[in-house]
Amino acid sequence: MRGLFADRIQDVPRSFIREILKVTTDKSMISFAGGLPNRQYFPLDQLRESTNRVFDRHSTDCLQYSNSEGLLELREYISKRYRSEQGLEIPAERILITNGSQQALDLIAKVTINDGDPVVIEEPGYLGAIQALSLYRPRFLPVKVNDEGMDTRSLNKAIKHNPKIMYTVPNFQNPSGISYSYENRSRIADIITRSDCFLVEDDPYGALRFQGDPIKSFYHLAPAQTILLGSFSKTVVPGFRIGWVAAPEKLCDKLLIAKQAADLHTCNFTQYVLVDFLTNYPIDTHLQTIRTVYGAQCRAMIEAIERDFPDYVSCTRPRGGMFLWGRLPEKMSSLELFDRAVARKVVFVPGEPFYTRKTRSSTFRLNFSCTDEQVIDEGISRLAEAIVSMESAGR
Amino acid sequence: MRGLFADRIQDVPRSFIREILKVTTDKSMISFAGGLPNRQYFPLDQLRESTNRVFDRHSTDCLQYSNSEGLLELREYISKRYRSEQGLEIPAERILITNGSQQALDLIAKVTINDGDPVVIEEPGYLGAIQALSLYRPRFLPVKVNDEGMDTRSLNKAIKHNPKIMYTVPNFQNPSGISYSYENRSRIADIITRSDCFLVEDDPYGALRFQGDPIKSFYHLAPAQTILLGSFSKTVVPGFRIGWVAAPEKLCDKLLIAKQAADLHTCNFTQYVLVDFLTNYPIDTHLQTIRTVYGAQCRAMIEAIERDFPDYVSCTRPRGGMFLWGRLPEKMSSLELFDRAVARKVVFVPGEPFYTRKTRSSTFRLNFSCTDEQVIDEGISRLAEAIVSMESAGR
Repeated sequence: MRGLFADRIQDVPRSFIREILKVTTDKSMISFAGGLPNRQYFPLDQLRESTNRVFDRHSTDCLQYSNSEGLLELREYISKRYRSEQGLEIPAERILITNGSQQALDLIAKVTINDGDPVVIEEPGYLGAIQALSLYRPRFLPVKVNDEGMDTRSLNKAIKHNPKIMYTVPNFQNPSGISYSYENRSRIADIITRSDCFLVEDDPYGALRFQGDPIKSFYHLAPAQTILLGSFSKTVVPGFRIGWVAAPEKLCDKLLIAKQAADLHTCNFTQYVLVDFLTNYPIDTHLQTIRTVYGAQCRAMIEAIERDFPDYVSCTRPRGGMFLWGRLPEKMSSLELFDRAVARKVVFVPGEPFYTRKTRSSTFRLNFSCTDEQVIDEGISRLAEAIVSMESAGR
Repeated sequence: MRGLFADRIQDVPRSFIREILKVTTDKSMISFAGGLPNRQYFPLDQLRESTNRVFDRHSTDCLQYSNSEGLLELREYISKRYRSEQGLEIPAERILITNGSQQALDLIAKVTINDGDPVVIEEPGYLGAIQALSLYRPRFLPVKVNDEGMDTRSLNKAIKHNPKIMYTVPNFQNPSGISYSYENRSRIADIITRSDCFLVEDDPYGALRFQGDPIKSFYHLAPAQTILLGSFSKTVVPGFRIGWVAAPEKLCDKLLIAKQAADLHTCNFTQYVLVDFLTNYPIDTHLQTIRTVYGAQCRAMIEAIERDFPDYVSCTRPRGGMFLWGRLPEKMSSLELFDRAVARKVVFVPGEPFYTRKTRSSTFRLNFSCTDEQVIDEGISRLAEAIVSMESAGR
């Protein structure tokens, strides 16, 4: 008998994060599991002013149907910002507004991936990307990331399979927190430009650097093949659901058709409010605040880890973003650690959902953007106890 | 050489409406082409009050990431409204908030359609549905609609191909403006319940009835197989991009995974504002205003048509919604009429994009929601001239 569902939906991973959220409704639970920006620093008053100004100035325009590309003023702002911040020339015509960069991923996969087409993905990689791409049934070619970026030896092998796209988060990667070095980016660009693979550079965290200097975008190194994804979720607010994709010209028309078929256009009202906010308030001051807070919290987490964790647990040292990544000895399971941590009222995300091949993992992700230094201190101390308890149980 | 694009994007129709919009930037052009609600009747002041109240009451909640299902209060409102307005028992748990009902279509196709799966669609049918479904490469089985609804003889033949879904707009259909009679719905339900086909009942216009009594939803007749789509775009504002799908339980989980992969969740901020608006203001008073206006404009259009159009042009007589549908003699082309109409400063949508099979068409859609009675009078008079000019040119 024919099945009820399309083949593509049969084996899409359900987000483990959703399951974890159920545990975190307990108020005494310390959560390092989320991937949320810190709501304490949302620019509430300014957004409220912007909203009222939008009602004054754009009355019905902000509430009527709009075009699928997104608001021109917003796309021009993004274009200008690429120029001023990164020296990139990307005209507004090549920028498409999406419902967060998550939708950009869905659209890119929709217009490029046939069943079984090879796709390079970071290992570990962003689980939202794994989920979005899975629906188009690609053959995943996972390439390991290390402290320098992507393992280029492994990438060289993967590229021989002629992948259609390669998905990367080169700045403060989710989940590992690492950034690709310039040398690593150059070597990757050399490999990519000898192929006809598109390189997706997803950069939700680039503006959240609290240490060191920015590293050049892949767009400088392989402009014809780089697809840039961006988002206002971490720099302004996630609830507006506004992100974008800046694609090579030959992709733009198809992406636009896919966007139109998917939902006609992104919420018009929040696009207007966002443009007003970005035009009338100093976003860099706002970003500096977030960077300072996240930087202090990241340092507090690393210090607590150095103080409390046994030496055999290694962790990354992020210079920005919202996450760091821990590694237990291979014989220890992070899923088991999760259960022991919940019993001690602290949660994190075990490594499993960040891998496309199903393996028992000994890795885990810690979020430092949402908890203050004191809570981080306490949470890491509880987590250390959970680790030690596993050890004494002989595992 | 392997192509750049996925097969699915190769032959998706580009929206003809987009092309028409370019013509309508001319201020002296009278447009019956749009599918927009009338912005004069947007509840601006009330939405502004609601927005400020949301900032007061929900501060950061309305701006943070949220759940993929959508705001519970909004889903409960929709559930309650189904009960009070239509006597339907649909729990909030089976309602998923989407970016307009357009996204619901994309998600339904994503979770049900494999390449080549048969799909029943109205002929003529909503072009946004044709576009959304096309991306999943179904085999379309078009079934003609007439003044009573769907041609059940033709549906009986189509159902033998074992379609996965059937897409319908039974109230004030887009593009034709017709509604399915109760008898027609019953016959269709008889056919559907003997198959394992899902019946998608898209109902964006149901609340815009300005004449006659409501007709029962398919959900009364075939509850286990009916997927209901709804939207606030025509009843409140389209710019918020809020619609929903209410699906049989067995589909809900898959739809939720697809929604999550597509864009995590629908704009949170506008969901909060909408709930506040719906809770604090009498929506039925607002709907009554729209119904009165659209009803008067529809009557004005029909009267002008009866006065000005040659007898050989037939038109539907809608009792609600935003559109009516015209039919020229078969030898006359509505695309040619379009060119002649543009020359006389009036536009409409020629029938072509509403058909899945590419045929030269002699049909056309007229929108009556966006132009007042005087403009309608003038526009129909110009259009009549264009028709007569074709006739005298011997076509």
